[in-house]
Amino acid sequence: MSLLVTGTVAFDAIETPFGKTDKIIGGAATYISLAASYFTKDISLIGVVGDDFPSAYIQLLNDKGINTEGLQIKENEKSFFWSGRYFNDMNSRETLITELNVLSDFDPIVPQELSSPDFLMLGNLAPIVQSMLINRLSKRPKLIVMDTMNFWMDIAMDDLKTTLKMVDVLTINDEEARQLSGKYSLVKAAKKISEMGPQFLIIKKGEHGALLFHKDQVFFAPAMLLEDVFDPTGAGDTFAGGFIGWLAKTGDISFENMKRAIIYGSAMASFCVEKFGTENILSISQEQLNARVKAFQTLSSVEMKL
Amino acid sequence: MSLLVTGTVAFDAIETPFGKTDKIIGGAATYISLAASYFTKDISLIGVVGDDFPSAYIQLLNDKGINTEGLQIKENEKSFFWSGRYFNDMNSRETLITELNVLSDFDPIVPQELSSPDFLMLGNLAPIVQSMLINRLSKRPKLIVMDTMNFWMDIAMDDLKTTLKMVDVLTINDEEARQLSGKYSLVKAAKKISEMGPQFLIIKKGEHGALLFHKDQVFFAPAMLLEDVFDPTGAGDTFAGGFIGWLAKTGDISFENMKRAIIYGSAMASFCVEKFGTENILSISQEQLNARVKAFQTLSSVEMKL
Repeated sequence: MSLLVTGTVAFDAIETPFGKTDKIIGGAATYISLAASYFTKDISLIGVVGDDFPSAYIQLLNDKGINTEGLQIKENEKSFFWSGRYFNDMNSRETLITELNVLSDFDPIVPQELSSPDFLMLGNLAPIVQSMLINRLSKRPKLIVMDTMNFWMDIAMDDLKTTLKMVDVLTINDEEARQLSGKYSLVKAAKKISEMGPQFLIIKKGEHGALLFHKDQVFFAPAMLLEDVFDPTGAGDTFAGGFIGWLAKTGDISFENMKRAIIYGSAMASFCVEKFGTENILSISQEQLNARVKAFQTLSSVEMKL
Repeated sequence: MSLLVTGTVAFDAIETPFGKTDKIIGGAATYISLAASYFTKDISLIGVVGDDFPSAYIQLLNDKGINTEGLQIKENEKSFFWSGRYFNDMNSRETLITELNVLSDFDPIVPQELSSPDFLMLGNLAPIVQSMLINRLSKRPKLIVMDTMNFWMDIAMDDLKTTLKMVDVLTINDEEARQLSGKYSLVKAAKKISEMGPQFLIIKKGEHGALLFHKDQVFFAPAMLLEDVFDPTGAGDTFAGGFIGWLAKTGDISFENMKRAIIYGSAMASFCVEKFGTENILSISQEQLNARVKAFQTLSSVEMKL
């Protein structure tokens, strides 16, 4: 089924205890669509870059079957640029540079032929831009998944609440779930957030795994245990890409199938963090992916004798 | 099979955002043996209290089938007392009072008839006391499980390393695993700690679950998702008690059976935190326990289609 992805397409410069990069390809929509491309080939991307964005980077997306017709290239403008440094524990980071550039007045134009996707993945962007895009579609997608972050809760909570009412699935981390709901208990946070709109909530806990809430049901997926986390950049977006990719491939949006989608998302994210930037999610074989998914199953598999 | 438990037997005074207690029964050996009593009835306890310790508290242990013949009662001395306050997130606490009292010169005397247990659980105590007790046994138990904490890593690392060489299973939390091994990655920490002695390592991650490492095998058990955590005191000890209790009941110390033991430990710990102190682990029915274990299985159960 068709998948439309929006979010940032950007330059990242990353510093971790293991090394640093120059400006490399980054952005939420980049990671999402690359990860989703392992599951479905009917992917289109809506986004904006400046004319400093190398055509080789766009080609890289096209080579994965991602339609970039909706990627606006602004003449004489610069692409969104983010630079950050991770600390030793890899769980915390500081932002060194944020240059919005083309993103500051991003108008998400939806080409006619992309306006009726089966699945819509709203990568992290200003919530007002996310809702604008939904409003421009010619029909309501089968499923809308929204990612956001604490930054928008701090400066655009009203817009965020408006967009939340329009989506089916929200993906945020545990601290963000607490901030959004005002509840410390994640069980209570999930209930509160379901009242704000999304009927499915995914709470990403990084190295501690991920939770899926839907009505009274809950599913927990562990994170892969890795010898080293090399670079966490894009892990959450890669997770979201694997998740929506699996749903778009199967067309099944039941809770049971979302559980599988979370395992695929977790597997993709575990590859992502093993190298810098997008490097490790450019060439995963089906065998590698299956082996990783099996490792997830083994990790928490136990036969009880009740 | 027979189980010998040692550790503190104490008074606790606890303050949480939900309320506070006067001096109530506490201590590592108390929680461990109470939790283990749900699985096996051949339990003896080695410990020390002052003559201020109510006989009703000792009776409470006896009523659960716990043999307290090895519990020394020191005339004209006071029991170990700990008082602590939990913060809003329940993951951090401050110690308000620690009065060692009888614990300051605890000599773990092992009555002859308790000196050849099948299983030995060393609850948190000075590592030199833990090793002294092992040395006084007339035969080596089938399995020795040791709990410890960062405090001993700070002030008695050499003693701790000596005791580590004598035990089969170590249970610590993630920060302690990092401190003990000097490695941030838990996979690397586990390898390093296995070189220090214990062939099985359990890393307790509180609300984030628990990990079991053995050679190249690893198992992850999620923590139960609870609406509210009322009082985390004793959760780690209750976990250890459920773990060793299941092993002593079944007599099976394979990796597969330790996985089950971890689920039982996690289930017991999830009951513990739902009320103050030992209150909630005094009267769990078999039906409640089975239902909780099933809930653990459901929580991370997913059928993949590979």
